[in-house]
Amino acid sequence: MKNRPAFTPLLELLPAVVPFVGPSALERRRGRRFRLRLGANESVFGISPRARRAMQESLDLVGWYGDPESYELRSELAKVHAVEMENIVVGSGIDDLLGLVVRSFVTHGAAVVTTLGAYPTFNYHVNGYGGELHQVPYREGYNDLQALADAAGRVKARLVYLANPDNPTGTWYGAGELRAFIGRLPPRCLLVLDEAYVEFAPRDAVLPMDAADPHVIRLRTFSKAHGMAGARIGYAVTDAETISAFEKIRLHFGVNLVAQAGALASLRDEDFVRDVVRAVEQGRRDYALLARSQGLSSLPSATNFVAIDMGSAEGARAMVSALAERDVFVRQPGAPPVDRYIRVTVGTPDERTLFAEIFRQALASSR
Amino acid sequence: MKNRPAFTPLLELLPAVVPFVGPSALERRRGRRFRLRLGANESVFGISPRARRAMQESLDLVGWYGDPESYELRSELAKVHAVEMENIVVGSGIDDLLGLVVRSFVTHGAAVVTTLGAYPTFNYHVNGYGGELHQVPYREGYNDLQALADAAGRVKARLVYLANPDNPTGTWYGAGELRAFIGRLPPRCLLVLDEAYVEFAPRDAVLPMDAADPHVIRLRTFSKAHGMAGARIGYAVTDAETISAFEKIRLHFGVNLVAQAGALASLRDEDFVRDVVRAVEQGRRDYALLARSQGLSSLPSATNFVAIDMGSAEGARAMVSALAERDVFVRQPGAPPVDRYIRVTVGTPDERTLFAEIFRQALASSR
Repeated sequence: MKNRPAFTPLLELLPAVVPFVGPSALERRRGRRFRLRLGANESVFGISPRARRAMQESLDLVGWYGDPESYELRSELAKVHAVEMENIVVGSGIDDLLGLVVRSFVTHGAAVVTTLGAYPTFNYHVNGYGGELHQVPYREGYNDLQALADAAGRVKARLVYLANPDNPTGTWYGAGELRAFIGRLPPRCLLVLDEAYVEFAPRDAVLPMDAADPHVIRLRTFSKAHGMAGARIGYAVTDAETISAFEKIRLHFGVNLVAQAGALASLRDEDFVRDVVRAVEQGRRDYALLARSQGLSSLPSATNFVAIDMGSAEGARAMVSALAERDVFVRQPGAPPVDRYIRVTVGTPDERTLFAEIFRQALASSR
Repeated sequence: MKNRPAFTPLLELLPAVVPFVGPSALERRRGRRFRLRLGANESVFGISPRARRAMQESLDLVGWYGDPESYELRSELAKVHAVEMENIVVGSGIDDLLGLVVRSFVTHGAAVVTTLGAYPTFNYHVNGYGGELHQVPYREGYNDLQALADAAGRVKARLVYLANPDNPTGTWYGAGELRAFIGRLPPRCLLVLDEAYVEFAPRDAVLPMDAADPHVIRLRTFSKAHGMAGARIGYAVTDAETISAFEKIRLHFGVNLVAQAGALASLRDEDFVRDVVRAVEQGRRDYALLARSQGLSSLPSATNFVAIDMGSAEGARAMVSALAERDVFVRQPGAPPVDRYIRVTVGTPDERTLFAEIFRQALASSR
């Protein structure tokens, strides 16, 4: 159109892609609900009863703006992690925080390193702010730490993204390996450590918090073990100077009051999260056994999902389709070599029994 | 610190200011709660019972990600406004949408026009994306449309911001005046029309929706008449090409599921909103009479607040302090000439009675 307002040159050039088509959008496109929704790593184990009560009660206050400083929640998080409130920022989930990190550190053309096939929303933000993505392939189902560090040094990366435990593979590294990896990164590089699944990980896979270190930012969420994906709330921990810089650009009134109330209550319900973690462990074992019973292997996982090896990208694509035809939603990772897997979220025991049955049928029909 | 990761040059240069200190943060700084919270234009008239029920029920689904396409809500909004779904984007309140608009159209150094003392969060985003703000003073409590259009032409503005009805003055223009104003803007300029308070406005102050026009974007919210400020949800209406561009950069999973459910239900409860609007009208009359009874004037308002003229910026500042000492929270607009007013949100009848009493005391003590 003549004389229409001009978008920024960056926006004009961006491709029309979205990082994920949501489960509800997929259902609309299919014209049918899923019977088993096991493709978005949502928690099927509900929310803490305390979180539910807090959220319900918060509806009485929903006419008020929530606290833009998330003071109570940050106070509690500071205690939990033995850091200061000044080391914490709360956002509308890790997606929001990834956008904030990228916007804060990535200028046009700045180099950013990630694993090929890792979390697409990080890439979406890097592209959205004009950064240049350098992607390092997975190596046997694991992030290739040596190759990531090498790439970061070579391209002088501003940011390196790593999920630990990883998504979409579920694999993880121990704190010692992470520390060595951080030591190999270039001196002015920031490690964006996505810990969405950290509650499911063994203790020795969790790097101790060192909030004085400006070279690492830890991202956490209430979407997974806490079961509050729909509430949109997460947080980041890093040095206070970085958090102060975020204050200059972040959306101060972005996090809703219901989520703040729920997150605070859920954080205080350690028993609930512990029970969820145990239930998920059992589910991972079930999936691994199911795969093995069908002559398939699966990756070790410290998350709420398991990646089952279908032998090839074609095999994985066929299985995702065969499951979808049977109203089961799972995802296939987006890039080789990890596109040979299907990623299946841990369901309830009943859902897992049903999944096993449908999985065997789908496999038999495709063989 | 040597070798710390470098922020973008833009972020490095930004001042450490936040657009608003929230009411809860103010209370923490005072060390005391407010008795009357009438400074943030929050609704004291609650939420629709239907919205409450929908939000309560949505807690059962909070383990799931909300719909990133807000399909149901956008369908309903499309019906209400007689536009297509492709003309609508949903965000976490108008603040979020303002950020999206600025990011989409404002390059470094691009000129943007607004009224001096108008909504600070718009300015915050313009600064945050490196735009250059040109601010035109209010004229007798009104946005100066002629001066805004002149400035836009002179500086070749990418964006012009206008709130109608206005905040912090409460004043408004009719659709005819708005149309003439739009006609005077430069050909590639986008009018960002903030309609946060539109439900309170007379019908002839509402420009008919013309979603084919790429030169106007309308911003609406569920924070005011719908009483859902804490839920964080709003939307924008404009031409489909602009909405498609937003899809390339917006936070797709940013809007929480509870808010989406509440907004949809509230939208369908027209009676509720009509009752709120009526109650607010009565409140505005009460405030105007109160001012007059004290020999003060107030601005006409088509919002849920009234600006009372304290005669001077010093007078307004003194009154805000005197009220705060008495545990009443109101705000003073941030720039001359409108900093001679205090802005008082319409409270419940009981709150208004109490406010009148305290206001008279505060006035007497300061005279």
